[in-house]
Amino acid sequence: MLPFDILEYQNRLSETKQRMAERGIEVLLVTDPANINYLSGYDAWSFYVHQMLVIVIDEPQPIWIGRNQDANGAKVTTWLSEENIIPYPDYYIHSTINHPMEFIAGKLKQIGHGKRYVGVEMDNYYFSAKAYEQLKKHLCYATFKDAGLLVNYVRIVKSDQEIEYMRRAGKIAEAAMKRGIENVRTDKRECDAAANIYYQIVSGTEQFGGDYPAIAPLLPTGENTSSPHLTWTDRSFQHGDSVIIELAGCYKRYHVPLARTISVGAPNKELKRITPIVVEGLNEVLESVKPGKTCGDLEAVWRKCLQKHGIEKESRLGYSVGLNYPPDWGEHTASIRDGDHTILRPNMTFHLIPGLWFDNYGIEISETFRVTEKGCETFTNFPRDLIVQDPFSFNKQDGKIS
Amino acid sequence: MLPFDILEYQNRLSETKQRMAERGIEVLLVTDPANINYLSGYDAWSFYVHQMLVIVIDEPQPIWIGRNQDANGAKVTTWLSEENIIPYPDYYIHSTINHPMEFIAGKLKQIGHGKRYVGVEMDNYYFSAKAYEQLKKHLCYATFKDAGLLVNYVRIVKSDQEIEYMRRAGKIAEAAMKRGIENVRTDKRECDAAANIYYQIVSGTEQFGGDYPAIAPLLPTGENTSSPHLTWTDRSFQHGDSVIIELAGCYKRYHVPLARTISVGAPNKELKRITPIVVEGLNEVLESVKPGKTCGDLEAVWRKCLQKHGIEKESRLGYSVGLNYPPDWGEHTASIRDGDHTILRPNMTFHLIPGLWFDNYGIEISETFRVTEKGCETFTNFPRDLIVQDPFSFNKQDGKIS
Repeated sequence: MLPFDILEYQNRLSETKQRMAERGIEVLLVTDPANINYLSGYDAWSFYVHQMLVIVIDEPQPIWIGRNQDANGAKVTTWLSEENIIPYPDYYIHSTINHPMEFIAGKLKQIGHGKRYVGVEMDNYYFSAKAYEQLKKHLCYATFKDAGLLVNYVRIVKSDQEIEYMRRAGKIAEAAMKRGIENVRTDKRECDAAANIYYQIVSGTEQFGGDYPAIAPLLPTGENTSSPHLTWTDRSFQHGDSVIIELAGCYKRYHVPLARTISVGAPNKELKRITPIVVEGLNEVLESVKPGKTCGDLEAVWRKCLQKHGIEKESRLGYSVGLNYPPDWGEHTASIRDGDHTILRPNMTFHLIPGLWFDNYGIEISETFRVTEKGCETFTNFPRDLIVQDPFSFNKQDGKIS
Repeated sequence: MLPFDILEYQNRLSETKQRMAERGIEVLLVTDPANINYLSGYDAWSFYVHQMLVIVIDEPQPIWIGRNQDANGAKVTTWLSEENIIPYPDYYIHSTINHPMEFIAGKLKQIGHGKRYVGVEMDNYYFSAKAYEQLKKHLCYATFKDAGLLVNYVRIVKSDQEIEYMRRAGKIAEAAMKRGIENVRTDKRECDAAANIYYQIVSGTEQFGGDYPAIAPLLPTGENTSSPHLTWTDRSFQHGDSVIIELAGCYKRYHVPLARTISVGAPNKELKRITPIVVEGLNEVLESVKPGKTCGDLEAVWRKCLQKHGIEKESRLGYSVGLNYPPDWGEHTASIRDGDHTILRPNMTFHLIPGLWFDNYGIEISETFRVTEKGCETFTNFPRDLIVQDPFSFNKQDGKIS
C-alpha cells in the first residue's frame, strides 16, 4: 500500500529531527497535509477538520491525531503502529463549544509533552489562528516556536523514487493538455474542455491511474486571460478566443504542472508579438539551469531577456513543486525571483511559469523541470509555443487535431 | 457576469453589518473564500495566497485586497468599484521576509481603521496563526474580536435564487452518480470511475455547465469503506467489492452532495443487514423535517430508529451545506446532532448523511434537502437504497445499466 519504502519515511523523519534539533524544537506539530503525508504516508481528504502528526524528537515513530472516523484511514495508509493512531470524538467537529486542539493539548500533556519546546507551522492553511490560541491556552507551560516550512525544506530535494512519480505525473499532464486542447473548439463549451482535462488527469494513463490535483484546471478565456486564476464558464468557445490552460498531472500526490496558451483561429497581434519573447526567455532560463546557481540567477536570465523587448514582469517566475494537497501544488519554499538565494541542487524540482498578464489579455507557457547534475530535465514534452487551434483542421470524425 | 442581482449582494451586506453592530465590530476582515464570494461575487482559485474582503460598518461597499495578478479577476467577477480593489505586490507571496498582512495592516491604517474594533474569522483555513500574529503586530491599536462564522450564519438561510442554483447542482449530482455507478464494474479501474464522475460534475448538463466541487469525489472500496475520506486507487474493481461514492454536483459554487453505496455483484451479509436500517432511518428523518424543529430533534429521530436495531452512530448525522470552496462544502454552522439547538427555517439546506463505518466496512446513503414551509424537498431523485451492480446486467455495447 505505501508508495515508498519504510526506510525512505524514516530517512525523512531523521532529517526532520535534525532540523528540529538545530532550532531547539522537541515536539513538532505537523498540520500541513503534504508534510503529514511525507512523513507518515497518510493520504485522505480529511484535512478539512483539524488533525496533525506529532514528531517527538526522542521517539522513533510519529503520532497521528485526527477525527475518529478517519482513524481507519490512518491505519490503512500509514506505516505507524496502531497505538500511535489517536482518534478524537466527533463532538469536536465544527462545534461552537468544543475545539479539537483542546483534546490534542490534553493528549500531549498526558504523554508528557506539556512543558516542552513545541514547533507549529504558523502560516499553514490547516493551522488557523484559533487552533494556535487554543493550543496556547491548553498547553500553557509549553514554549511555542514557529516551525513553518521546516518539513517543506526537507521536501525540496526529491529522492529518485519521488522523481519517478513526477515523471509519471508528467505523462499524465501531457495527456491532459492534449485532451484539453482537442476540446477547445467552437462546438464545445469551456466546461466541456475542463471536464475532459479533469477526466484525463484522474484516469491517468493505461499504465497508471491519476490523482486529484491540488488546484483545479484553470481555464480563463478571452479578456479573462488577463487574470491567471479564473476558472471556466459554460460559454461556448468563439472564433478568435485566446484560452490559457494551466493544469497539473498528479501521481501519488506528486504534481507536474503545465501551462499553454491557445488561440482559436489565427492569433491576435498581441499574442503574435509576445509569444516568441516568452518562448525565448523560457528556453534561455532552462538552458541556464545548473547546480550551484541560485533561483535569483535564473530570474536574472529571464529579466535580461525581457528587457531587450522593453517588457517587465512583476510576479515571480516559478516555484518549488512536488507533493501536495489543495489548495496549492507549490511547496512555499524556493521561488524563482530576484533576491531568492536558494542554491540549485540536483533533484530540486520547479514549475517555471513565465506568465504575463496585461489589462485585457495574458499568456502562459510553462515547464516543470528537475535540476540534474549538469543542467535540467523537463517532465513533459509538449510543443513549447502558442497553440493555434484552426477550426478547419479538425477531423470531425474523432475530434482529434489532424 | 454576476450570478445574483446587485440588490441581493447588498441585502447580504446589510444583514452582515447588522450582525457586526450586534457584536460591536466596526471592521470585518473576511478571509473565508465562500464568504468573500457571498458578499462580493469574487470567484477565482486565488485563495491559496492571503486575500480578504474588508467590510466597514459605515461604508457602502466592501474593499477587496489581494495579490496584484488577481486584481483583474476581482474587476471581472465582483460588483465593486475599481477603487475598492486594492492589489498588493508579488514580493509578499510565499516570502520568508514579507507577509501580506503587513501590507494589509498598512492599508487599513492608511484609510483610517487602525484603531477600530476589528473582526477576524479565527478558525478559517485562510486565516492562519501567522496572519493573525502579523495583523496584531502591525495594527497594534486595533481591538480584535472573533467574528468566526458571522457571515456563515447569514448564509444559512438561502434565497430563492440560491435554491434554484442548488436545484441545478442537484441535477448535476444525479447525472454524476449515475455515470459513476455505470463505471463501477470489473473491467474498469477505480480511477476510471472517479474520472467519469469528475467529467460529469464539471461538464454538467446540456442546459448548464458544472463547477469544480469543494471536495474531490470520494470513492473508498472494499475494506477501505471503513473510512469515509479515502479516495480512489488504480486497482480494478473486483466481483464482491463494495464501493462508496460520495460526490457533489456544483453550480456557481453551490453544492448538492449525494452518497450511495454500491455492491459489485451480490452484497455481503453485513451490507444486506445494515442497508434497510439506514434507509428506514433516513426516510424517518426526512419525514420528520419541519420548520420550528431543531437539528437535535432530527438526530433524535435517527437515534431512536437505530436503537431498535442495537446500533449507535458516534458521528454527526449531517450539516448545513451550500456555497463553498475547497477544502469543504459544509458551512460549519448547524450540524444535525444531539445538542444542536438550531431551529429549522424554510430554505435552510442540509446534507443528511447517515454514514456508518465499522472495522472492515461502511455504508453511506445520503440526501441533500431544503426545509420547506411544511416539510422538506430533496434536491436529487436517485434510488434510495444499496445499488447492486450485477456484472451480467451490463449492456456491453454502451456500458449503460440495462
